Amino acid sequence: MPELRKDPVLGRWVIISTERAKRPKDFKSSPEKKTVSPEACPFCPGNESATPPEIFAYRESNSKANSSGWTLRVIPNKFPALLIEGDINRRGEGIYDRMNGIGAHEVIIETSDHSMDLADLEINLFRNVIYAYQERMLDLKKDQRLRYVMIFKNFGAVAGASLEHTHSQLIATPVIPKRVIEEMDGARRYFEYRERCIFCDIVVQETKNRKRLISENNSFICICPFAPRFPFETWILPRNHISNFEDATKEELDDLASILKDCLLRLKKALNTPPYNYIIHTTPVTLKGIEFYHYHLEIIPVLTHIAGFEWGTGFYINPTGPEESASYLRNII
Amino acid sequence: MPELRKDPVLGRWVIISTERAKRPKDFKSSPEKKTVSPEACPFCPGNESATPPEIFAYRESNSKANSSGWTLRVIPNKFPALLIEGDINRRGEGIYDRMNGIGAHEVIIETSDHSMDLADLEINLFRNVIYAYQERMLDLKKDQRLRYVMIFKNFGAVAGASLEHTHSQLIATPVIPKRVIEEMDGARRYFEYRERCIFCDIVVQETKNRKRLISENNSFICICPFAPRFPFETWILPRNHISNFEDATKEELDDLASILKDCLLRLKKALNTPPYNYIIHTTPVTLKGIEFYHYHLEIIPVLTHIAGFEWGTGFYINPTGPEESASYLRNII
Repeated sequence: MPELRKDPVLGRWVIISTERAKRPKDFKSSPEKKTVSPEACPFCPGNESATPPEIFAYRESNSKANSSGWTLRVIPNKFPALLIEGDINRRGEGIYDRMNGIGAHEVIIETSDHSMDLADLEINLFRNVIYAYQERMLDLKKDQRLRYVMIFKNFGAVAGASLEHTHSQLIATPVIPKRVIEEMDGARRYFEYRERCIFCDIVVQETKNRKRLISENNSFICICPFAPRFPFETWILPRNHISNFEDATKEELDDLASILKDCLLRLKKALNTPPYNYIIHTTPVTLKGIEFYHYHLEIIPVLTHIAGFEWGTGFYINPTGPEESASYLRNII
Repeated sequence: MPELRKDPVLGRWVIISTERAKRPKDFKSSPEKKTVSPEACPFCPGNESATPPEIFAYRESNSKANSSGWTLRVIPNKFPALLIEGDINRRGEGIYDRMNGIGAHEVIIETSDHSMDLADLEINLFRNVIYAYQERMLDLKKDQRLRYVMIFKNFGAVAGASLEHTHSQLIATPVIPKRVIEEMDGARRYFEYRERCIFCDIVVQETKNRKRLISENNSFICICPFAPRFPFETWILPRNHISNFEDATKEELDDLASILKDCLLRLKKALNTPPYNYIIHTTPVTLKGIEFYHYHLEIIPVLTHIAGFEWGTGFYINPTGPEESASYLRNII
């Protein structure tokens, strides 16, 4: 019997399909081979002039900005979805609303090594990626026009990565995204009723029953959520209540780096280097110390197609239950 | 300068990206070749026993159910996402909610001709597809456990079609889908403020200014919407207010068949037989004569990838503005 399960935050039902059940081996991807030479890659050392001037970098103390000698580099996206210069200028057209595309669109080049994937990065370098996310968020928070800073990673062409050199992205928007409003509304309704943060309750329940738990450390748990949209969808949640990613302590960031790296390695091993997206879900930078919302990270391996049913309903048909996904990922060494 | 545009029903912003602007030729797909022989296809005449027994068919008057002699056949999905037999049995697991996967999942085999695509179907046969949609909806409406009937089509493997013989699907759910609730809520808010149906207002504005209009007939207009998620996203809206698809008259259904066929042919020509999804967005079958909501059909060619930004925000970055898409589609003979 297929089962309908409701995401407790968004009220989104997913169908865990038994008639179409798929096991991990049904999804094995073939890893995308890197085909661009470092000489031709705009994200490689020596080619710094091929990108807009850097905003931030971790680099050797005697090296100059926009030259080699870096281990991580943050640059404006050369083809930005939103532009940092200009006025928002909200205006109408009959019944419709529009505004200028003001915002920030940055690229975090995670390593100078073209051959490397994020999952395989040495832990000190991986930590730098997480530190850089927070640094950029703290900086962009100062721009009064921006309401939200979203950090995400697309790995693999079918997951939307247009360049193969490993990188993350940041987009800051002048409006709070629809999905963020929905999550915050859902979490607020739960808080009004129970006077507890729903994400804290998820942490308690998942830590106790353990059947969807993949791994844990001092600051975080890694789980397959109760109502996942996709096979092997995985969430990382802070154990302690913390609403804003930019307020995480260095110790927490180190723990996030270690559990995220571990999770990416498990997915890589389980699914043969699948394409994936991950997104940091956090409180809008204009708010602080929210008691009902709790930042977290969602990882979506790209193994299935979105089709008419998903577009029409906002529901998802998932052929692999989270207990099975979690058990498989948990038991990978 | 990129532009942010808001969907007036859902409040969803999309970024119409100018820095990444793409013209129709940048998207040309290569048509998927059919590789299965009619002998091996479960949807072909002569293989009726390979599917569950038919629910409905248009067939020669002297032919028998589940034998050849049909031009259209509706069958239960052999691997249904939801099952028709059983009780819903809502229940909890700590903070989570679940229920049994009760519902209907049917396949509309649009023609007996394996080589044919829907767009190329002779108009009388195309009309039968639309009639069958309505027939099935009217029948399933009688089942008190079902709250919503969604009709959709996936064309092409990357759009989620798992069999190449042209077909549509119907899924009836025991809950009203999230996306439908969002659309109805948005439309209700507009109605409360203006005392007019927002879809009627869209029809008026688009028919007047014409820059996003692709085609029109007595009963329908075909447009690229003001805030499309995707390049060449196309909507078909009834000119006159009608909330429920199942209440459309035969004349309206004939006009829908003709404008949809025309639209699919334009997309096929413009984009070299792209994969696509379409979905009928209609009022829940449990409601009737709603004054604020207006059924319509949304067509999404699959030309781009959904990535981290879209998953995290619920917003979309669209490299082709609707005025450009519409002008291109309008000018195809």
